[in-house]
Amino acid sequence: MSSAATRPAAPDDLWSVDEHLEDILSAVRPLEPIELQLLDAQGCVLVEDVMVPVSLPPFDNSSMDGYAVRVADIAGAGEEFPAVLEVVGDVAAGAADPVRVGPGQAARIMTGAPLPPGAETVVPVEWTDGGLGEGPVSGMRSRSLAPQGAEGHVHVYRSAAARAHVRARGSDVKAGDLALEAGTVLGPPQLALLAAIGRGTVRVRPRPRVVVLSTGSELVQPGEELGPGQIHDSNSFALTAAARDAGAIAYRVGAVADDAETLRSTIEDQLIRADLLVTTGGVSVGAYDVVKEALSYAGDADEAGSGVEFRRLAMQPGKPQGFGSIGPDHIPLLALPGNPVSSYVSFELFVRPAIRTLSGLTDVHRPRARAALTADEALRSPRGRRQFLRGVHADGKVTPVGGAGSHLVAALARANALIVVPEDVESVEPGTEVEVVLLG
Amino acid sequence: MSSAATRPAAPDDLWSVDEHLEDILSAVRPLEPIELQLLDAQGCVLVEDVMVPVSLPPFDNSSMDGYAVRVADIAGAGEEFPAVLEVVGDVAAGAADPVRVGPGQAARIMTGAPLPPGAETVVPVEWTDGGLGEGPVSGMRSRSLAPQGAEGHVHVYRSAAARAHVRARGSDVKAGDLALEAGTVLGPPQLALLAAIGRGTVRVRPRPRVVVLSTGSELVQPGEELGPGQIHDSNSFALTAAARDAGAIAYRVGAVADDAETLRSTIEDQLIRADLLVTTGGVSVGAYDVVKEALSYAGDADEAGSGVEFRRLAMQPGKPQGFGSIGPDHIPLLALPGNPVSSYVSFELFVRPAIRTLSGLTDVHRPRARAALTADEALRSPRGRRQFLRGVHADGKVTPVGGAGSHLVAALARANALIVVPEDVESVEPGTEVEVVLLG
Repeated sequence: MSSAATRPAAPDDLWSVDEHLEDILSAVRPLEPIELQLLDAQGCVLVEDVMVPVSLPPFDNSSMDGYAVRVADIAGAGEEFPAVLEVVGDVAAGAADPVRVGPGQAARIMTGAPLPPGAETVVPVEWTDGGLGEGPVSGMRSRSLAPQGAEGHVHVYRSAAARAHVRARGSDVKAGDLALEAGTVLGPPQLALLAAIGRGTVRVRPRPRVVVLSTGSELVQPGEELGPGQIHDSNSFALTAAARDAGAIAYRVGAVADDAETLRSTIEDQLIRADLLVTTGGVSVGAYDVVKEALSYAGDADEAGSGVEFRRLAMQPGKPQGFGSIGPDHIPLLALPGNPVSSYVSFELFVRPAIRTLSGLTDVHRPRARAALTADEALRSPRGRRQFLRGVHADGKVTPVGGAGSHLVAALARANALIVVPEDVESVEPGTEVEVVLLG
Repeated sequence: MSSAATRPAAPDDLWSVDEHLEDILSAVRPLEPIELQLLDAQGCVLVEDVMVPVSLPPFDNSSMDGYAVRVADIAGAGEEFPAVLEVVGDVAAGAADPVRVGPGQAARIMTGAPLPPGAETVVPVEWTDGGLGEGPVSGMRSRSLAPQGAEGHVHVYRSAAARAHVRARGSDVKAGDLALEAGTVLGPPQLALLAAIGRGTVRVRPRPRVVVLSTGSELVQPGEELGPGQIHDSNSFALTAAARDAGAIAYRVGAVADDAETLRSTIEDQLIRADLLVTTGGVSVGAYDVVKEALSYAGDADEAGSGVEFRRLAMQPGKPQGFGSIGPDHIPLLALPGNPVSSYVSFELFVRPAIRTLSGLTDVHRPRARAALTADEALRSPRGRRQFLRGVHADGKVTPVGGAGSHLVAALARANALIVVPEDVESVEPGTEVEVVLLG
């Protein structure tokens, strides 16, 4: 973590959404790379250019099941006058020391098996009698049933040019070629290539470990009875799931009561497994805003970039936010507001890009689109705030769901987009083209 | 698994891509549902309508940090003539037994805290002097620093209507409402709603367990030295990763040598943890096609739907394919061809939809689009085969990468789409609009 604040905000100033995001992204650095087994590296970002050590395929090999022969021996062969060749053996895939094919000879060869010495081309088994002497066949008999298929004579009914049905050594990639560039995200096809060129491990940025905890003495674990004044904790579940969706290994700590000392010691306990900490609640202007109270004091005045700064953003929902770093390793921490919709929107706008930056990705934001607003009446939005309303986006249109209330979880669960109403807009008429953030 | 074959194909008949896919999807059934903890259910399909047991919020509560008051007591309050009220205590979030607010009184109230008895509305702290007697404030002092903030008198500088800044009981969802419909895929916002309404567990279809094994005596684990005639196993890595991308819990068994007995016992060993088995290689017309040999005998003639059927598809790459079921539980098995590109394309077309069907999803296919072909020369495609070429798709255009060869892994690793050339098309001119399958 480098220093946090990019502007010396006076206490009552509002930060813009963009200033807060820029502050976060300028402070969060990609994680140090580590060497991982291929399947552990799935979805990770490669940090090295990977070169091809040995050409692929490593040897000339057959692309068909058939017979490896010399070109001259099958020249002019046809249905009526087939070439008849002596079968000298099998060349299976993986054969270390294949039989030699001399003039007038053929070897049964399997897909992927090395072209044996002496052979110049491959005729597919369907162009032959498969050694059975009864006209064209549709396949070979399996070796265990008919080992004699590798002996006797084969009738070939068509000629073939030199190197027909042969995959040349290096025709996929050549030794010294660049296989994958640093920065590549490793999906299944990229892992296929790494495996194919013999790489068992690869140097990538690891998936960030994200610790999620919610705060609030009113919070009860789902599945347990509510007492008076209590509600169920939903933020820690939603944000743990969202962190995983963003590519993190996420740990849900659960709900911590509104006690500064408990919160501070819980966070200190978690530092050992955190590349990023996310809290919800306790960041506003009330007397029980425990995150603000506990973490405003966690900074070390002697060390730049240490401590969490609490801000008010020109944003709805999500006005109160905290960002900074804690602990001797300056682990970044984002303190989100506690209302379920506020915390989820804040996650999408700020935490997801932070996680993806830690992962080494360059494309860190949700995609955005333009869509025509479908609504019965104009949307109202407070002047000077960037509003993010929940909406359903389809076919170039977007329809708001639920209202602006930051406690409306049911509507959030039906939304697939956020409708962005800029700071200087107070009303959006139906039919207007608006910007939408596309969620998952 | 119900019966496999939908048409009595004569041995030499080619199945179409659509017939093979239809056969698979008509035989594969969604997995039996289980009750899972919320975070274990992420990405899963809900199998029950979930109703709201208790209204949300469960009680009227404050949407602001401020003071809970009676409307009449602050009527006409202004900067010059503030209302002065006696502060009778704090109402924190989670408060079980809040203080009563009488005439001329106010209680400090925190966001989310229950509206106390007697109070009719909430004034935000920013509309008051916070009890400090020095004009409007921007927030409360934290309780630990200034417990006296809950006592004394507060000046209120603005009036408020009844129930201002109050979130009404049931304003999010009401008891008896439908929270989530059966069939919903549980992402972070849906998990938020389930948690919010108190559900600790939920009934979903589990993620399918997919066992992936590659076959071939030529295969060597990546990271190990190649001997003559050997290549590195890449299919088991690529398909395990692809199965995970499709939502499965995937197990990579690795490469099995071309020996029918070994393969049969390996598969039998794996049945215990498999909802679906995927093999690569050994399905063609050669003498060493061990999957075909081993599994053609695995069926129980007395039981419908048992056993694996091997077919040739009117498709390039991916002509030889096997599909059926094995073991006493009729676990579905897809036997894919062994060339890396063939197996990957086959996975995308057949295995991914099967995994998603097992998951209970209805939208099982990769999205498709139309794109203008960008190429130096016409694409050639064999008549009677549906060809799937690798391409890079962007901005409504698609450019082929690599050639048609099914061993070209490097090109596959650069592709993000498959270009579909229909069976009756032998040549596609540059600029023609083609169908593309969008990968990942």
